This record gives sequence, C-alpha cells and structure tokens, in this order.
Amino acid sequence: MNMKQIEKEFLDFVKKISAYNEALGLIYWDLRTGAPKYGVEQRSEVIGLLSSEVFKMSTSEEMAAYIATLSKQLLSEKTSKILQECKREYERNKKVPEEEYKEYVILQSKAESVWEEAKETDNFALFSPYLEKLVDMTKRFVSYWGYQENKYDVLLDMYEPGMTVSLLDQVFHELKDKIVPLVKAVSKSPYKPKTDFLFEKFPKELQREVSLKILEKMGYNFNAGRLDETVHPFATGLNPGDVRVTTNYNENDFRTAIFGTIHEGGHALYEQNISKDLIGTPLCTGTSMGIHESQSLFYENILGRSYSFWKNNFELLKQYAANGQFDGVELEDFYRAINESKPSFIRIEADELTYPLHIMIRYEIEKGLFNGELEVKDLPEIWNEKYEEYLGIRPKNNAEGVLQDVHWAGGSFGYFPSYALGYIYAAQFKHKMLEEFADFNHMVESGELLPIQEWLTEKIHQYGKLKKPIEILKDVTGEGLNPNYLIDYLYKKYTDVYKLN
Amino acid sequence: MNMKQIEKEFLDFVKKISAYNEALGLIYWDLRTGAPKYGVEQRSEVIGLLSSEVFKMSTSEEMAAYIATLSKQLLSEKTSKILQECKREYERNKKVPEEEYKEYVILQSKAESVWEEAKETDNFALFSPYLEKLVDMTKRFVSYWGYQENKYDVLLDMYEPGMTVSLLDQVFHELKDKIVPLVKAVSKSPYKPKTDFLFEKFPKELQREVSLKILEKMGYNFNAGRLDETVHPFATGLNPGDVRVTTNYNENDFRTAIFGTIHEGGHALYEQNISKDLIGTPLCTGTSMGIHESQSLFYENILGRSYSFWKNNFELLKQYAANGQFDGVELEDFYRAINESKPSFIRIEADELTYPLHIMIRYEIEKGLFNGELEVKDLPEIWNEKYEEYLGIRPKNNAEGVLQDVHWAGGSFGYFPSYALGYIYAAQFKHKMLEEFADFNHMVESGELLPIQEWLTEKIHQYGKLKKPIEILKDVTGEGLNPNYLIDYLYKKYTDVYKLN
Repeated sequence: MNMKQIEKEFLDFVKKISAYNEALGLIYWDLRTGAPKYGVEQRSEVIGLLSSEVFKMSTSEEMAAYIATLSKQLLSEKTSKILQECKREYERNKKVPEEEYKEYVILQSKAESVWEEAKETDNFALFSPYLEKLVDMTKRFVSYWGYQENKYDVLLDMYEPGMTVSLLDQVFHELKDKIVPLVKAVSKSPYKPKTDFLFEKFPKELQREVSLKILEKMGYNFNAGRLDETVHPFATGLNPGDVRVTTNYNENDFRTAIFGTIHEGGHALYEQNISKDLIGTPLCTGTSMGIHESQSLFYENILGRSYSFWKNNFELLKQYAANGQFDGVELEDFYRAINESKPSFIRIEADELTYPLHIMIRYEIEKGLFNGELEVKDLPEIWNEKYEEYLGIRPKNNAEGVLQDVHWAGGSFGYFPSYALGYIYAAQFKHKMLEEFADFNHMVESGELLPIQEWLTEKIHQYGKLKKPIEILKDVTGEGLNPNYLIDYLYKKYTDVYKLN
Repeated sequence: MNMKQIEKEFLDFVKKISAYNEALGLIYWDLRTGAPKYGVEQRSEVIGLLSSEVFKMSTSEEMAAYIATLSKQLLSEKTSKILQECKREYERNKKVPEEEYKEYVILQSKAESVWEEAKETDNFALFSPYLEKLVDMTKRFVSYWGYQENKYDVLLDMYEPGMTVSLLDQVFHELKDKIVPLVKAVSKSPYKPKTDFLFEKFPKELQREVSLKILEKMGYNFNAGRLDETVHPFATGLNPGDVRVTTNYNENDFRTAIFGTIHEGGHALYEQNISKDLIGTPLCTGTSMGIHESQSLFYENILGRSYSFWKNNFELLKQYAANGQFDGVELEDFYRAINESKPSFIRIEADELTYPLHIMIRYEIEKGLFNGELEVKDLPEIWNEKYEEYLGIRPKNNAEGVLQDVHWAGGSFGYFPSYALGYIYAAQFKHKMLEEFADFNHMVESGELLPIQEWLTEKIHQYGKLKKPIEILKDVTGEGLNPNYLIDYLYKKYTDVYKLN
C-alpha cells in the first residue's frame, strides 16, 4: 500500500472516532435537556460502550501503526496536526497501566459521591482520604507521562497546551498585585450601585425571547443551533452545523438567563465557525479551554456588560420586561447595577473583578499539592487564609470554602487556571479590536455585532485546533500572554462604576 | 473456554449491537424533532458509520461462530430466542452477495427520489423501470433466502413472522366479502353525521394539553417518555425507560393531534412495558409490525373512537377547546362525527372501515408481482380497477392512485398487510377483553383505562419478541387469526353510526 492510501485510511479511522464522539455528544445533550429519567440507567450503558470503543480505537495497534508510519512522512499541515493530536491522546492513554487507570476511574466516581456528602455535611475529613488518593494517583500518572520543569505543567498542558507554572506564576503575580488593591478600593467606595430593580419577576418565556434576540444579534446561526433550558447552562458543538446552547431561567433574576445565554453564545460562535474542512477530525473544536473561555467571557463581560452594549439593548430588555420592571431606571444605573462587584465565597457566583482571585487561590493550592509543598489535610485552613488575604473574607464552613467545587473530586487538576486565562486572553483580543475597529464603541452602540464575530472567526474560530493557543494569541495580538490589558480594562471599568477617582 | 463463558460473551456482543441501535434511535428522533438543519449532512455520516458497524457485527465471523457453537447447546429460553433472532438477521444478510446488496441500496435511494418526482408530475412511466428493477432484485434475494410455498411468504415473514399467503388469502377474502357491502350500505345511508364543528380553530398549546392528559389516562409513563411535535407522528422505543411519542398539530382539525397521539401512545405502551429483563437484546421490541399496529389501532379506534371513551373525555375536550367549539354539540353527534366513513383515495387519510380495503388492494398487487401474475407496467390500470371494485371510486391520476405511497420505492414489499392484521388482531383482543372484564364499557366510561393497559402488558407487552405473533394471538384469545371479530365490530359500529337498521 502506498503512503497516500495509508493516509486516507488513517483519516477514515479518525473520522470514525469523530462519529462516535458526535453520537456521544448528542446523548449527553439529550440527557441534560429532557431525556426521560427511567431510561438513564440503560443510556449510561450505551455511553459506556461507545466511550470504550473510542478508547479502544484511540489506543489500538492500528492507531499505533498509523502514528509510527505516518510520523516519518511529509504530510499536509492538516494531516500532520491530526496525527499530533492522535499521538498525544495515544501516549497519554497508553503510558498509564490499564489496571491503574481502571482503579482511577472507580476512585473518581466514588470520590464524587463522597464529595457530595462531605459538602452537604461540611465534613472535609470524609473527603480528605479520597482527595489524597486522587492527588497521589495523578502524581504517579504524571511520572508515567514524564515532565520537564514542573510536574504541574503536565496537568496545565492538558487543558491549555504549552502553559507552564513559570509563566503562570509571573502573570498571576502581576494580576494579584493589581487586582487585590482594586477590590479593596471598590469595597470602600461609598458609591454602591442600586440593584433592587434587578430582582423583579421577569417571566421565563419573555426572558427566552430576549435571549433569542440577543443570540441572533451576536451572529449565532439558528440554522446551525438551538436554545434549550437546563439547570446548568452549556454549549455543545456536535459539528459546526449543529452547535447547541442551553440556558437557565431564574424568574426573580433575569441576569442568570441573559448573561448565561451570552456566555454560552460566545462558546457557540467559536464552534459554529470552525472551518468545515476540519469536520470529522480531532481538530474540529476549540484549541484550548482558555481560548474557548476567552470567547465566552469576551461576549458575556467585555461586550455584554459594557455601557455601549446596553445603550443598544436596554430598550429591548425594557420592552420584554413585564410590569414595567425598568420604568424610571436610567441606563447609567442599569449599567452600574449589572457591574456590581463584591468579595464573595462562591466562585461561580463571583463578578468579573473578583473572579480571577478565586482562580488564583485554586491555582496556588494545586501547584502546592503537586510539588509537595502542601498536604491535603491542611487545605481547609490554607483555603480560608487565602480567601482572607485575597478577598478580605473568611468562609464560615467548608461548603462555602474548600468543598465548593466538584473539580477535584473528578480529578480535574490543572483545569481552573483556564478560566483566568480566558479573562486575560479576552482583554488582549479586545485591545486589538479597539486598534483595528476605529469605531468599536459606536458599532456596539448601534447593535452592529456581526463585524466582531467575523473578526473573531477570521482570527480565531476558523482554525479550530490547527493553531495552538499561544500561536493564536501571538498571531492576533502580536505578543504573548500579558495581563496588563485585563488590569487596564478592570481599572477603567471599576473606577467608573464605583467612582473611584 | 466453557459454554457459560461463551454464552456470556455472546450476550455482551449482542448488548453492544443494541447499544449502537439505541444511539441510532436517538439520532433519528433528534433529526425529526428539531436538529439544526446545517448539521444534518454530517449527522448522516455518523448514521452511516454507526449503521455499518451494526451491519458488520451482525454478519461478522464472531457472530457466525457464536451461532455455530451455541446452536448445539441447551440454552435458556431467552438466550435461545436471542440466538434465533441473530441467526435470522445473519442469514438474511449473508445470503445476498455483498455487491448485489450494495447495488440494491443505491437503487433504493435513487428510486425514492425518482418516485417523488413521478408522483409530483403524475408520471408513472418515469418510476416504472425503477419499480421493475426493485421487484426483480427482491425476487432474486428471495431465491437466495429460499422459500417453501410462495415467494411472497418470505416477504410477509420479514414484518409478520410466520404469516403466509395461504392464510392471508383466506382471511382477506372473508374480510372483503363482508366489508365491501358494508361500505356500500354506509355510502347509501341518508343519515350522514354532521362534522362542521370539528374544523374550528383549536390552538396548538391547548391540543397539547389534551394530548398529555389523555396519554396519562392511558397509562403512558412520562418518567419513561415525552411528547414532541413532528410533521409525521411516530413513537420510538429507545429502551423501555425511554419511549418517546410525537404528534402533529393541525389547528383547524384537532383530530390529527388527538387521534395521532392516542395511536402513537398505543405503540408506546407496548414498548414501555416490555420486560426489563430483555433490555440490551434484540428481543426488546414489539414482536411484529402487525401486533404493534394492533396496540396502536386498539387505542386509536376501538377505544379512542368509542362512545364510552368520549362519554368520559368529551368534557375534557370541551374544556380546552377555545371559543366554545363544542357548545351545543351533543355527545352522540360528536361520536358520529369522529366516526364518519366514506370511500377515499388516500390510504393514510382513510377511516377505520375503508382502511382495510386500501390494504387488500396493495396486498393483491404485491402478491401478483412476486408470483409473476402481474407486470409493473400494468399497475396503474389494475390499481384503478381495484379501487372501483372495492371502494366504488376511481382515482383521477396516479398521484392519488398507484404512486401515493413511498413503500415500494423503498423496496418495502410485504409490509402493507401488517396494517390490516393490526385491525384484525385488535378486534380479537377486544373481544377477549369483553369476556374478561365484566364491566368493560363502564370502566372506559369512568376513565379507568389502567386495567386495560395492565391486561395488555400481562398478555402481550411484557414478552417483547419472546413470543411470535401467532403465539401471542393463541395464548391471548385461544384461537388463530380470525377476521370475524373485526367484521362484527365494524358492523355493530357502522350500523349504529349510520342507522342502517
């Protein structure tokens, strides 16, 4: 068989794996949007069987042979990147002994249910041995996978290819130095936004109408997607022609649905606009968690909580709000209200100013655990100390402290930093947009958001995983990771909102 | 390896095939209930890949080995039936040379699109060569599969295991002899039901409310299902815990949705109540097209168009109908209206009295084609003759004649008789219910439909494919296929509705 034929066979094999993943994606979407509950047990079996087929194919001798043979060839850029992805996956999975991996999967699922109980009963000691074991096993996996500078780099790399502790340390340090004083200044400001008008009853169906209108303005294509309701909002790209968004409606706080929709809409625009040429390959998704999050956060916060955006959309919102919820509310007051910031315990409820601090705390703890500088048993105390240092508040219990997030129970170490990276990237992209669109604010004020989506598609979306995050960042902005744009953005915004000058 | 182990491996293999089919079922449901259209092309690739995996597994050497080894063993009833199903499938697929099968699949898909055009332009000559080729190839397949008495038996057996021409000839003959005169008597009756009040505007959301209420009364379990909207209603059993129903709303004719829902609800009750013990096996579905149809038709017509049913539900319908649609309409008039019968050209729009005649015409034509007594080119003429003979009306063109149904274009020969068998079975089951429930009508009048569902579950649903259709029929009624109960039922009903005495 000649090389062209082998390459074609390899691409067919990869296409098959993608097909399984697409079917799995639909099953997950369905489970979260209304699958009948009595069918779930059997559906889990189906998930198990299809996932194990994917695993088998990704780690098969057939795959090994393709990697071995094709790695020596001169390939097109696309095939070569696909091969790299497959190799990455193959090695990650093959280097861990099968028995240990099975043990780990069982541990994960036990740990999640123990974590739930521990959180409910505020009992860290219950969860602690599981967390210890998860950290130990993950450390062992890291040693199988191999690392260069820092063990934790290997975990960062899973979510943000190329990211390292040495870079994050520096960037987070700068960020912390600037944000902590800003948070303090905001706390002390006597000019608090009024927010009472946010919490009036806004019927679900009308919130849905507003959500649909805003998605459309953003450039979300309803021929390639749909909006459904779930407890936890998400976006899922089954293929670029089918990228679904969900949101959650709180009738006493319209912000949940509207900003949730805009956030997921940002993720969805990314997935809808990946080049069709990448369909059926592992490159047909966002290049990293961080870049993905940069898209959702750009839309949700930088755009969606901007004065210009609401200058265009406040009338729309007023129109749909029942019972004159915003009668007599000035745009200025509305803008300040949706940008209220205050230190809080729960990460997922945090505002955009304090959010990065929640992340840094988790980053420092994870890094400490994997470098042997911290022990699991000490986490509650360390956690609370850090909240006091960074945010000036101390959790009263572990449920609102160290036990709040499911991530560690699921073994997801190295994941948290992506959220903060998303903020940093988003601010860098925004800065570039200001340079390239002379009339950026005016455009947003007039509701012309399509040029923004087109710009993001041209520079980011279309590439999928063809470019690494750092390549994207450099090609778009001309520089590397730089927290100063986020810092500037936050200073300008919160100085204004809280009248700090 | 010992036999127990081989049996376990076989059952695991079968479970895997079921898992793929369940995933495919969900994909089909999704495509029909709102999948974004730009994603369909890629989704079709996914369907193609998963289906071809199912085909490969069903015809694999692994499967052949299980069949060969386990056929010689003493197995549990369940395993033995599973093995039979697998063998049936294996042989059906293996006996046709691969090249011919591929040619056939291409022909099918071409024929369907040619049929569409032919129907639109009333041009039978366009479709005729494709139909000829489909019949020829199917004949050849029948010769590969082998047959005993009649070639057409092999095709009947695909949808109704065990059904034969000699039995159907006799049964359909009796049915025709009795129904044709009844149809004529009805046509001549001066007492036509008034129907104008059926066609007032009934808002979709309210039709949905009524549909949900009736499904619930029937015993449909919403923890194991959901109701969605589609152009063509259907029910799909992904597993007994997830059996979904769809319906279609016509705001100017509530009957479409209500009777459509009841019909699909009947199918769904069957699938929801199959023994959980059969999950993950090919036995976990209805035993045949005909028995399945008996459940939907029992609920839609025998129960759902009965006087007793509406004695209980007319108030409910009135309550949801907007603008007093049924004000001043007596239950008696309503009952007569929903049982209006008149000869018509289109099968899927036919009432329960004339429907079986539409089926018999197709049956006679198919049988003639496969036994060499008819030629494709003569079908339009034969079709029209038969409509005149059976129903007293003659189609004006082929679109409302021989070209109306997609079945033949898809190569589905032998399928049509199942619809009529469903009516016959349903009437046989109803007769037995009358014997076993002393107060059947009173029960229905009081809305107590659960005992009926429980009875059907005990006698039919739970078994899935563990029993063949004829076994079900004999075990439930104590006799074989007998059209007299349907004849009696139709005579009683239409004598009453059209005041024939």
